[in-house]
Amino acid sequence: MEELAAGLAAAQLTADGGTLSTYSIDQGPVTDWQLPLAVVWAESVEDVQHIARTCTKYSVPIVPRGAGTGISGGAHAIKGCIVLSLERMNRILALNPEDETAVVEPGVINADLNDAAAEYGLMYAPDPASYRISTIGGNVATNAGGLRCAKYGVTRDSVLALDVVLADGSLLHTGHQTFKGVAGYDLTALLVGSEGTLAIVVGVTVRLRYLPREVQTIAAFYPDFRRAAAGVLAVGKARVQPAIMELLDYGSLEQLDELNGTDLLARGKSLLLVQTDGFAAVAEADVIREVLAAGGAVVTTEASEEAERLVDMRRSSRGTEVDDEFRVGEDIAVPRSRLVDFVAALEDLAARHEVRLKVVAHAGDGNLHPTFWADRVDELTDAGTIHRLNAALDESIEVGLRLGGTITGEHGVGQYKLRWLGLELPEPVRALQRQIKGIFDPAGIMNPGKAI
Amino acid sequence: MEELAAGLAAAQLTADGGTLSTYSIDQGPVTDWQLPLAVVWAESVEDVQHIARTCTKYSVPIVPRGAGTGISGGAHAIKGCIVLSLERMNRILALNPEDETAVVEPGVINADLNDAAAEYGLMYAPDPASYRISTIGGNVATNAGGLRCAKYGVTRDSVLALDVVLADGSLLHTGHQTFKGVAGYDLTALLVGSEGTLAIVVGVTVRLRYLPREVQTIAAFYPDFRRAAAGVLAVGKARVQPAIMELLDYGSLEQLDELNGTDLLARGKSLLLVQTDGFAAVAEADVIREVLAAGGAVVTTEASEEAERLVDMRRSSRGTEVDDEFRVGEDIAVPRSRLVDFVAALEDLAARHEVRLKVVAHAGDGNLHPTFWADRVDELTDAGTIHRLNAALDESIEVGLRLGGTITGEHGVGQYKLRWLGLELPEPVRALQRQIKGIFDPAGIMNPGKAI
Repeated sequence: MEELAAGLAAAQLTADGGTLSTYSIDQGPVTDWQLPLAVVWAESVEDVQHIARTCTKYSVPIVPRGAGTGISGGAHAIKGCIVLSLERMNRILALNPEDETAVVEPGVINADLNDAAAEYGLMYAPDPASYRISTIGGNVATNAGGLRCAKYGVTRDSVLALDVVLADGSLLHTGHQTFKGVAGYDLTALLVGSEGTLAIVVGVTVRLRYLPREVQTIAAFYPDFRRAAAGVLAVGKARVQPAIMELLDYGSLEQLDELNGTDLLARGKSLLLVQTDGFAAVAEADVIREVLAAGGAVVTTEASEEAERLVDMRRSSRGTEVDDEFRVGEDIAVPRSRLVDFVAALEDLAARHEVRLKVVAHAGDGNLHPTFWADRVDELTDAGTIHRLNAALDESIEVGLRLGGTITGEHGVGQYKLRWLGLELPEPVRALQRQIKGIFDPAGIMNPGKAI
Repeated sequence: MEELAAGLAAAQLTADGGTLSTYSIDQGPVTDWQLPLAVVWAESVEDVQHIARTCTKYSVPIVPRGAGTGISGGAHAIKGCIVLSLERMNRILALNPEDETAVVEPGVINADLNDAAAEYGLMYAPDPASYRISTIGGNVATNAGGLRCAKYGVTRDSVLALDVVLADGSLLHTGHQTFKGVAGYDLTALLVGSEGTLAIVVGVTVRLRYLPREVQTIAAFYPDFRRAAAGVLAVGKARVQPAIMELLDYGSLEQLDELNGTDLLARGKSLLLVQTDGFAAVAEADVIREVLAAGGAVVTTEASEEAERLVDMRRSSRGTEVDDEFRVGEDIAVPRSRLVDFVAALEDLAARHEVRLKVVAHAGDGNLHPTFWADRVDELTDAGTIHRLNAALDESIEVGLRLGGTITGEHGVGQYKLRWLGLELPEPVRALQRQIKGIFDPAGIMNPGKAI
């Protein structure tokens, strides 16, 4: 602690109990709550190097952290660790409109980068629902997705280059400032999504996209989920690539009504929200409305403002809910054609395990966010309730994998999903990944127990 | 050789001199011509495993090869190697229109996959100019780009999962069948572009895109290259994302005129070819025509067929030319804003070194393909000619890097560009890459001396 402090300003390090507690977890479920030894705030690349070197010297694990909005426990503290917050490294270092790129520090908030880019008619495309509060560094750590992925790709597709600090304190630059580049292995892509287990991201060069001149939003209400999911495939068959295609089930509409005082359920039992953007927004929206109506949807014909409000509601549909032992949000993705089968299986198993369920899906890319929860009755029955919930979770994962899916489409494995990772990745693949970690982090101090 | 043959049919292995010679090089420049010990054609995953195991047992290097259309020498034979051709593994194993994915063997020709996908209104987006003759496996090996990258991404962005055989003969599956997936490190992205130095690709799961319902093509002739390059930035400022944006200089137009009997040079000294696609093709083309005309272009107003012919001419503009010691095509990419500066520098250095130059560029992503050549006068002056050519090449690389570029945007490092790789990647990055190779290929038999 003394050596750490010697290289930092007083306000950059604390062992204050309240702060340690605040920084001990992200928004993921907690299974093994631990306090860090200290929280340190890096304000420069040199700070990060100093912290890494010091931690290496004393074999102290480092848990890097952006805004702490992750929901897989990737930033949960572990025993004897320090939490390294990058939130103060929040400068946009360069914004190059002609190159359509930007260079940012890891603590820049996603929405702030978008605001800055908008002045030049540009945007940073990856838009996790947390975009107003999550950092680019955190987005990189989890290879964050979002609503616009099916059209614009995930974080990896927008990251051109990275500056990272290794456990030994050395600073590396990977990637290229250009849209394309194939010199050597793609270490940038390897680092994106590695959840701080290989290196600490201290700089990110991103590609920007054109801010759409026009956006159209469509709300299509269906009498049931099955027909709504069929609408997703019908849009594909019409060869329209929407910017956003969100699918909400009965439980999600019920929750939105409760949160917002709306009466969505009076209009349908399932909702498909579609947004088109760019020069063809209107033409594409026309085709989509026609296709969805033919499939049994009641499609809003009024101006798209109302539908846009629904998209906003969807983005913030987590509301104030925080995952805990009685409520867990999942992140399974399945091939698009299996959406209906998967949700039917979820409904079935939720009923059998007597837990509650709601599902929203980034339907364009088959990425579902089911939330399972069980109402806590009293402390006597807690163990049984948690057991039922976990049984439902485990079974949902098994079904998702059986349908050709993945346990995590965009949230990351973190700490919480490690128990399922072996079901998806066979041991030889995991062995390779451990060996790769060994190259970057031979002492194993970089966010151990996460991601792989 | 006996053990290799024991596991294969007679027609799968040869040591015939003519065949060895044919398979000894790809279309890249040859600096160290070597014959392989044998050429083997795998027809199944098991064949590849048998070949890998046998080569590992006797420490024989394996040079994997698709159609041999690479132009960086990535498939050049090396001393004592066998060449492993994947061209007979050319089946499309699955095409899932609702999932918008396909699973193919590595020897499938890019255009054949596109033809198959087109029946469902889909396409495989990455379109290297060689798409009619190159294989998906080769495209994966080099992370091939193409004309449509700025809009649709490079090969990596379309590859969801890989089946690969390691040097020890083990078969691994990486990635996911879904558009998104973040379980574990992204080994798929690491393997894409690794040029056969980590593993042998035996299966590829790709994402498909919607075949555009409408395509518009614009030919804009300019009095000089500078104004044509400014047109590229003007299109960006109008926030239009074309599918294709190809920039041709005087030398390229001259060559096209020679090859095709056209009179392009009578119409302008530089040509910008732009293609828009999708529902907004017409609207976007209108905006582009207006923007380009305002920048001094003579823009075709007639139907776009003529311009489409120009795109076809551009795609095949290499004609019959093959790189050799007197002619080398490059693949530098620079940030878009530096296109003009870079081409001006190229013209200057070509004049100083007394070599000829033509430039085509995938201008949307700043990827240039300058070709330097020197007319061979007589054998007495060969050494001097080659020296001048190499001096020009070296200087062009230095300038490209100084402008923030990369030595290779989409062709790969192969064997030929290794001499420049150290200028782009600092030693610690290269050391990491060598260590990664060591994990996948501890005996170092996988395409040694290439890529890294």
